[in-house]
Amino acid sequence: MFFWNPIGARAPNSILLMAINAYAVQAAKGRLEPFSYEPGPLGRDEVEVAVTHCGICHSDLSMINNEWGMSQYPLVPGHEVVGTVASKGEGVMDLEIGQRVGVGWQCGSCAHCEYCHTGREHLCAQEVDTIVHHHGGFADRVRAKAYFAVPIPEALPSAETAPLLCAGNTVFAPALRHHVDGNMRVAVVGIGGLGHVALQFLAKMGCEVTAISSTHSKDEEARGFGEKSFIATKGTDEVQKAADSFDFMISTVSARLPWDDYVAALRPQGTLVIVGVPDAEMQVAAFGLIGKEKSIAGGRAGSPSDIAEMLDVAARHGVKAVTERFAMDKANEAVAKVKKNQVRYRAVLANS
Amino acid sequence: MFFWNPIGARAPNSILLMAINAYAVQAAKGRLEPFSYEPGPLGRDEVEVAVTHCGICHSDLSMINNEWGMSQYPLVPGHEVVGTVASKGEGVMDLEIGQRVGVGWQCGSCAHCEYCHTGREHLCAQEVDTIVHHHGGFADRVRAKAYFAVPIPEALPSAETAPLLCAGNTVFAPALRHHVDGNMRVAVVGIGGLGHVALQFLAKMGCEVTAISSTHSKDEEARGFGEKSFIATKGTDEVQKAADSFDFMISTVSARLPWDDYVAALRPQGTLVIVGVPDAEMQVAAFGLIGKEKSIAGGRAGSPSDIAEMLDVAARHGVKAVTERFAMDKANEAVAKVKKNQVRYRAVLANS
Repeated sequence: MFFWNPIGARAPNSILLMAINAYAVQAAKGRLEPFSYEPGPLGRDEVEVAVTHCGICHSDLSMINNEWGMSQYPLVPGHEVVGTVASKGEGVMDLEIGQRVGVGWQCGSCAHCEYCHTGREHLCAQEVDTIVHHHGGFADRVRAKAYFAVPIPEALPSAETAPLLCAGNTVFAPALRHHVDGNMRVAVVGIGGLGHVALQFLAKMGCEVTAISSTHSKDEEARGFGEKSFIATKGTDEVQKAADSFDFMISTVSARLPWDDYVAALRPQGTLVIVGVPDAEMQVAAFGLIGKEKSIAGGRAGSPSDIAEMLDVAARHGVKAVTERFAMDKANEAVAKVKKNQVRYRAVLANS
Repeated sequence: MFFWNPIGARAPNSILLMAINAYAVQAAKGRLEPFSYEPGPLGRDEVEVAVTHCGICHSDLSMINNEWGMSQYPLVPGHEVVGTVASKGEGVMDLEIGQRVGVGWQCGSCAHCEYCHTGREHLCAQEVDTIVHHHGGFADRVRAKAYFAVPIPEALPSAETAPLLCAGNTVFAPALRHHVDGNMRVAVVGIGGLGHVALQFLAKMGCEVTAISSTHSKDEEARGFGEKSFIATKGTDEVQKAADSFDFMISTVSARLPWDDYVAALRPQGTLVIVGVPDAEMQVAAFGLIGKEKSIAGGRAGSPSDIAEMLDVAARHGVKAVTERFAMDKANEAVAKVKKNQVRYRAVLANS
């Protein structure tokens, strides 16, 4: 049921008209520069979040570089936001000013379609994404539809939680969708920003977790994230040897993989979920899927209710991103380090 | 619970030692010739089925031609068998001599693994297939583990039911596995032996069914099978135009398809099941799967319990293969016609 509250709290106009101070790139592959913009009147179902922390995701880099052909400049990256509600529209009943919330990849949807009506707002055809034709969280404030600003449980620290809003959601939602349970043997391909969180969630769910990475360099740390065994792929045939091993695999990497070997590593009726975007078409022999009813599925960041469930699990089980922190005005330095794959495991910008 | 019955009916030795008269090819791509073999003593959990009807599946042709590299000669094709129990091992409690049964692609499994214990015998690593290192149903009799000889409901006619044992099972099992329900919009790619049965099952389940074929030549007949709309692909962009249309698609063809267009034709969270084996690796852009959580899955003939459920549905809803019948001794003629794609929709051999 929906009650429209005509005398609901309305944020003071001074806040509504205040410019947002952000960092933006002005063209593809550009450098981040200070950038201010007037966000206009706050919608009745919107909030403005005062950003305290914002993670840096590989998708930010892809958008900065216009790799997916949908970037619009000036582009303000940042879609792993934790902050507090600075202002809210008159229709917003569920959030209070000052309340701590997170905003991830998506910040809006139509609210009226079959997907929005069934808790699958991430499938809405009118999905609004935080950094696609919308200014993101490399800023002092960011806007979102209130429903996409998800309350952060008290037990969770802001900096280590910011990366969960996208990286965490991107690996947690597929596990929900494919009914991963604690009896399963699972594998996480790629131990970076997404992978190190995936290892934790899957291990906490009770799964027997294998980490798959190019080398053994992250083996010891991965064990700390819950890994039980480790496969190093570079120059080895370890994946081939792991045939018929996993009920569920999640690939977080953007590399071209020998997909048939990964499909073969699935157990019967197993699913390989792709969340990293490979830089070429996948080539797969249908026979490998057919014989034992295997699947390849696309996975992505889920809906606000998925995020809420993830945050609840994270709070109860102590799942945290391992972060390297940078002041917001060091965003270029942080992005450069992410580009070079030198961050273990997630760069987080913090406003002072 | 299992009771061993030491005084259970044992078939007379004369039957056990009687040679089976079959048709076999002696080498890849060979012609079928009369071939007799001694099947040896009947196992205690086996039955020997007197074949009345046997459908001809494209897999028979693939095995005759050794396209999958696993043929062994002499090879007796035939894995869409309907017949009567001629003889049974001493451990067989559930079937009676003379009872009408069907045998499909699979005729045995280990009976002891996690898959056999959970009604998923088709995933057993020790799966025995009716025409793989085992002699099939182009014969007067065929052997199977009793559990793989599934009783045929009385309402079903033998000739029109024989093709359900493989073709029917191959399209019905994936619909079960992927929880297809009557609210869904579905598409069947390829309107041949498998496709014409898939249309019927899916329509009877209540789905809104689209038939996808190269030309419109089967449109009218497909309507009779339950099709509501028809897409002809040859020289058209009808599949591209059908973007975001189907919750479930099943491809029965062995052609290389423009897979990205078929993935795009899925609705969010939709699944494309491949049961026909394409003659080349599938090329798929991961992005098309990721954005709306879509999947590509392999599908195949299911377990004996899947077959039993399918036959029950077929009996209640009147699902029947459309057959063209041939006497068993006209097997070469029938196979030639199947090869030329001149049979609508399934050739069935009958013993007199």
